[in-house]
Amino acid sequence: MPKIVDHEKQRKKVAEATWRVIQKMGLDQASVRNVADEAGLSVGSMRHYFTTHSELLSYAMKMVSDRVGNRITNIAFSGDLLTDIPLLVDEILPTDEEKRLEMEVWFAFVVKSLSDKDLAKHRMEVDDELRTVFIKIMNGLTTANLALPDLDIEVEIERFYALIDGLAVHAVLRPEKVTTDIMRRAVRKHLLSICRPAPASG
Amino acid sequence: MPKIVDHEKQRKKVAEATWRVIQKMGLDQASVRNVADEAGLSVGSMRHYFTTHSELLSYAMKMVSDRVGNRITNIAFSGDLLTDIPLLVDEILPTDEEKRLEMEVWFAFVVKSLSDKDLAKHRMEVDDELRTVFIKIMNGLTTANLALPDLDIEVEIERFYALIDGLAVHAVLRPEKVTTDIMRRAVRKHLLSICRPAPASG
Repeated sequence: MPKIVDHEKQRKKVAEATWRVIQKMGLDQASVRNVADEAGLSVGSMRHYFTTHSELLSYAMKMVSDRVGNRITNIAFSGDLLTDIPLLVDEILPTDEEKRLEMEVWFAFVVKSLSDKDLAKHRMEVDDELRTVFIKIMNGLTTANLALPDLDIEVEIERFYALIDGLAVHAVLRPEKVTTDIMRRAVRKHLLSICRPAPASG
Repeated sequence: MPKIVDHEKQRKKVAEATWRVIQKMGLDQASVRNVADEAGLSVGSMRHYFTTHSELLSYAMKMVSDRVGNRITNIAFSGDLLTDIPLLVDEILPTDEEKRLEMEVWFAFVVKSLSDKDLAKHRMEVDDELRTVFIKIMNGLTTANLALPDLDIEVEIERFYALIDGLAVHAVLRPEKVTTDIMRRAVRKHLLSICRPAPASG
């Protein structure tokens, strides 16, 4: 048992080293040699963890989406959608340095997936999962009678999802312009704009 | 004169061949040899058109943004913002096959620009120009008294711009899900959602 645990731990370390190489030099430089150097391992020992270069890249890509998924699973939801939806979206958006690195690496994989079938398969699975998240958001708002009446739900699902991916791209490319604060204000504004006005309190 | 024209024409042809190589094999495969093969030229003759590989890539990247810019310049605007804004945005979004190829190539350059200073400079110039387009859109709507009162303009500029880039990414990655029709409906809905309700006619 401990050996298996160590083995998996080591694979994660190697995948993290892959991320750093991608961030510093680009995905086309994430060779077995460069990753081994970054991880402080010999090129020879790399084959204990990954049989092929392609397996290493698939694993490193999947580790990004797994982390996002785990964070979402661990959110302590309040039950109030107008509080919970921003919390959920916050785990997808690059709202801190760690998530920014993940997103930057993810974009590199996404672009490579356009000419790599193995990576494309995983990219589409993740896209399907995220699309389902936004379908659930819109359905939840509608069921709770919070959404504006007469919304074109198909358009609203895409509009919310595209906004989030657009913010994520911008935050990676221009972090000084698209700050965490701007992203959060945009999400909140968007959410309010598709919901009925709150009843006046008091 | 004719010689200069031919020379520029040939450079464009080589840049277009570069786009096709990027689309088929990825940017890391856009070597001088592969581009020469795709363009039907000898590797030796490539140096008549581009001195270095880096110059070729910069030119091919700039040709994408130049085409978008030219299309926008050539729009016959009506003067009615609610008609003209969708027309303008349509020239940025991948609403046909040609624009989809451009956008796919652009993403590849954008990701490469994260680890390439020359490409990063151009990417940021284009980002500044596009951001200015959305600043002008929001200012235009406000001046024409079409925008809702009390909008947080800084957030609305980013929200519109991020929506457009998000739609563009999605349309390249999932063209069967994010169709031209969905993109146009999302843009129209977004525009209406930041504007005052139209006065009832009649």
